[in-house]
Amino acid sequence: MIPMKTGAGEGGMARNKYPEETVKRILDVAEELFMTKGYEQTTMADIVNHLGGLTKGAVYHHFKSKEDIFEAVFERANRPVVERAEAIISNQSLSGIEKIRALDESSAEGPSADMLRAMRPSSDPVQNSRLLAREFADALEVAHRYIEPVIREGVADGTVSSEFPRETAEVMLLLANLWMVPLFHPLADESEFERRVSVLVRVMHALGVDLVDWKFFDPARMWDDSWGALARDFIADDGGEDDRS
Amino acid sequence: MIPMKTGAGEGGMARNKYPEETVKRILDVAEELFMTKGYEQTTMADIVNHLGGLTKGAVYHHFKSKEDIFEAVFERANRPVVERAEAIISNQSLSGIEKIRALDESSAEGPSADMLRAMRPSSDPVQNSRLLAREFADALEVAHRYIEPVIREGVADGTVSSEFPRETAEVMLLLANLWMVPLFHPLADESEFERRVSVLVRVMHALGVDLVDWKFFDPARMWDDSWGALARDFIADDGGEDDRS
Repeated sequence: MIPMKTGAGEGGMARNKYPEETVKRILDVAEELFMTKGYEQTTMADIVNHLGGLTKGAVYHHFKSKEDIFEAVFERANRPVVERAEAIISNQSLSGIEKIRALDESSAEGPSADMLRAMRPSSDPVQNSRLLAREFADALEVAHRYIEPVIREGVADGTVSSEFPRETAEVMLLLANLWMVPLFHPLADESEFERRVSVLVRVMHALGVDLVDWKFFDPARMWDDSWGALARDFIADDGGEDDRS
Repeated sequence: MIPMKTGAGEGGMARNKYPEETVKRILDVAEELFMTKGYEQTTMADIVNHLGGLTKGAVYHHFKSKEDIFEAVFERANRPVVERAEAIISNQSLSGIEKIRALDESSAEGPSADMLRAMRPSSDPVQNSRLLAREFADALEVAHRYIEPVIREGVADGTVSSEFPRETAEVMLLLANLWMVPLFHPLADESEFERRVSVLVRVMHALGVDLVDWKFFDPARMWDDSWGALARDFIADDGGEDDRS
């Protein structure tokens, strides 16, 4: 396992275990509520009520708002994805393009994806503006921290032919996370998902990065992959039929 | 001029002119403050204080929040752009690709662009999440209402070769409005802008829509065009040098 760079806790030298335990309890309870009731439907009062005697003041001592709690819950749930990403990047047996494909697949999996699914942001981005903005900022951070360096590796090892590594990384992450996945952008059906995948694959091909083996690419198969799994659940949530459940 | 579809005012049958006049005064004052102080720095109290005796209650009677006022100010400032767009779309002497190019150019101009410039959203999207979400929703709406139908026209008249008109329109608007323009995504310098433009032009070319005459495309010239003008001001605002001012 790769050591974590984030979430080490404030201070890091606390002799008293109590604050960490309290934070953990708050995050556990909040995560459970976000996953069962949904984020919008969960209030700070709900979280306090499920903490078995912990006061509102104690919760606010650690977190300013429900948004703050969500940030911490998300960061914690996302740690395994971050660890997998760091492992992929440092795996010297993979070529640049193999790393990009592995990172792409990895990012559609894991508890943070499950959480977003469970939270079911409404299809109105303005109603979920903070979550959208967080995803936007996160997409650019991941682009710069992981994808851009790997595109440069791919250019060096000849598996990628990008003239614009930074911009290509940004376009890949923004389109994958804010457009292809129906988190803020409703998806009508499987065929619309296939069109989005086809467009993303084509866009990345034009920018010198083949996310899939272009010659044998079949968008219909993406529906059964990890990104498709994520998309399927959102369609089901929107009241559509998921006949493969 | 094309008749407006939006902003006709609530009710539409009001016999009393007073509410409209009040709303107009509020919007005038708010617009002036947003343009001079910036959006984040303007408070509801500032707006009330500049309304010469109008009470806070009267302002809140018409608008729930500063965000609501901004929506109305933006919508009003954007009307000329909407009118130009409707005129371009109904201009039967233009081919599909000519309409797309004209719409693309038109959208970088006008009072709404001036307002965004003046508002100077910080480079942190989470701090400006509502504005980001509004731009995101707006990009998709413009894609569906204007660009997708025109791409279909272009396919019919042979000037565009898109297999995926809806998805191509969405990618064009999201990348142009949320990525190429440095509203939420800081731009270091002219060369970074040129790389973003090059990537967008290449992406659209791959999707069958030539935003520029591809054979003679020179990204450096974009800096002097309307999108470049918008980008230049944001760089200048970020403390960079604008040596062409």
